[in-house]
Amino acid sequence: MIPKDHPRYHSLMVRERLARCAEGGILSLEGLTAHGRGEAFDYLMGERTLESAYLAEKIAAALLRCAERPVISVNGNTAALAAGQIRDLQEACGAAVEVNLFHHTGERHQRITTYLRKNGVKILEGTAERLLPLSHSRALCLREGIGSADVILVPLEDGDRCGALAGMGKTVIAIDLNPLSRTARSATLTIVDELTRALPVITRFCRDLDPDQARSLSGGFDNRVFLAGALQEIRRRLEHALD
Amino acid sequence: MIPKDHPRYHSLMVRERLARCAEGGILSLEGLTAHGRGEAFDYLMGERTLESAYLAEKIAAALLRCAERPVISVNGNTAALAAGQIRDLQEACGAAVEVNLFHHTGERHQRITTYLRKNGVKILEGTAERLLPLSHSRALCLREGIGSADVILVPLEDGDRCGALAGMGKTVIAIDLNPLSRTARSATLTIVDELTRALPVITRFCRDLDPDQARSLSGGFDNRVFLAGALQEIRRRLEHALD
Repeated sequence: MIPKDHPRYHSLMVRERLARCAEGGILSLEGLTAHGRGEAFDYLMGERTLESAYLAEKIAAALLRCAERPVISVNGNTAALAAGQIRDLQEACGAAVEVNLFHHTGERHQRITTYLRKNGVKILEGTAERLLPLSHSRALCLREGIGSADVILVPLEDGDRCGALAGMGKTVIAIDLNPLSRTARSATLTIVDELTRALPVITRFCRDLDPDQARSLSGGFDNRVFLAGALQEIRRRLEHALD
Repeated sequence: MIPKDHPRYHSLMVRERLARCAEGGILSLEGLTAHGRGEAFDYLMGERTLESAYLAEKIAAALLRCAERPVISVNGNTAALAAGQIRDLQEACGAAVEVNLFHHTGERHQRITTYLRKNGVKILEGTAERLLPLSHSRALCLREGIGSADVILVPLEDGDRCGALAGMGKTVIAIDLNPLSRTARSATLTIVDELTRALPVITRFCRDLDPDQARSLSGGFDNRVFLAGALQEIRRRLEHALD
């Protein structure tokens, strides 16, 4: 039991919720560690949405709105943290949702699918094929989903897979708290923000942007600006951290 | 199964080992997340021992050598990562080892004790009492161990508890990868380094320092220098990170 008087109560409570999701087979144990890694970067950025991230979220909404075959790739961490928010985003942008796991087992895939459906998410079904140029089960995805998507939102994705998707010519939108990760560097657009803060903002912009605004925003942008924005903020905060 | 061609193979393998320790009841699930948080800071410092940390490790050895009642406080993460290294350090400095958990259950306490003993660590036994000014089970420790220690090594300790021990006038040596954590700031001496790199260095200095050197080193030092050293290195690396 976490004492309420603990200064890191909120963070400890999220950890505890994720721990229960791990016990329930939604989250892999490795996923818990990955969450902690993200936590540290969030902490270094002040646990709030930076201006640069907010702009990236707006552009992400534009890309999803202008896509012909948008897909949201959901893994265990995303399901555990944000099932309801994924449902809202799906409703707002009409994307297909594909469950796609790094630590893949058929049983966990089924558990996550069931959990998301209970939360109102429509899940794409089918037989996974080895369509990505990667070893092991990481190559697997659905031909009618990620395989033929033009725009893919990958919250909390592995760097190898993100790079492979981008290398196939797809527009890859990553949500990743580490602005230096291979995921962050290889995505077309990187949102350096905490997942549950980022998703509602993207959803709102998906609803609010008119088609002209969306077309204009999804045109030229330089992803390095978003990575640099996050790095700059971390450096700025570290400068006076011990004062 | 982690593919060997993955660029983060080592880090992913450590995560997998910790996941197995969690399944075996050594590590709490929350401990997995805490590990990930440390990982991020290690990554930002280049996953190596900084010069400032090396000096802190030398001073830590001096403090342990000069102590009258040195104690090493071991939790689940420390046991999972470094049981053998704790045995070596205990042999080199003669400290008592007390198992002391943040997420306390009697069963986990027993499992960790058994696991450490299998690895050759001598564990202090007794009845825990509420000796620290903290709520819940975090107040518990042994009167003959942490309760009467003059120098305590707390690898990977919670900030509240570290602050409480320091507030009781004890010399607290923390090992913590986050130079901004409350643990890092409230300890008497903070080693900002990864546990399994730090422990063998401390052990070697415990063996090599002669008594005069140890006395001289354990005199005046300013812990802010060690925190600042780590922060400076993170900032330096972030500056050219996107080049």
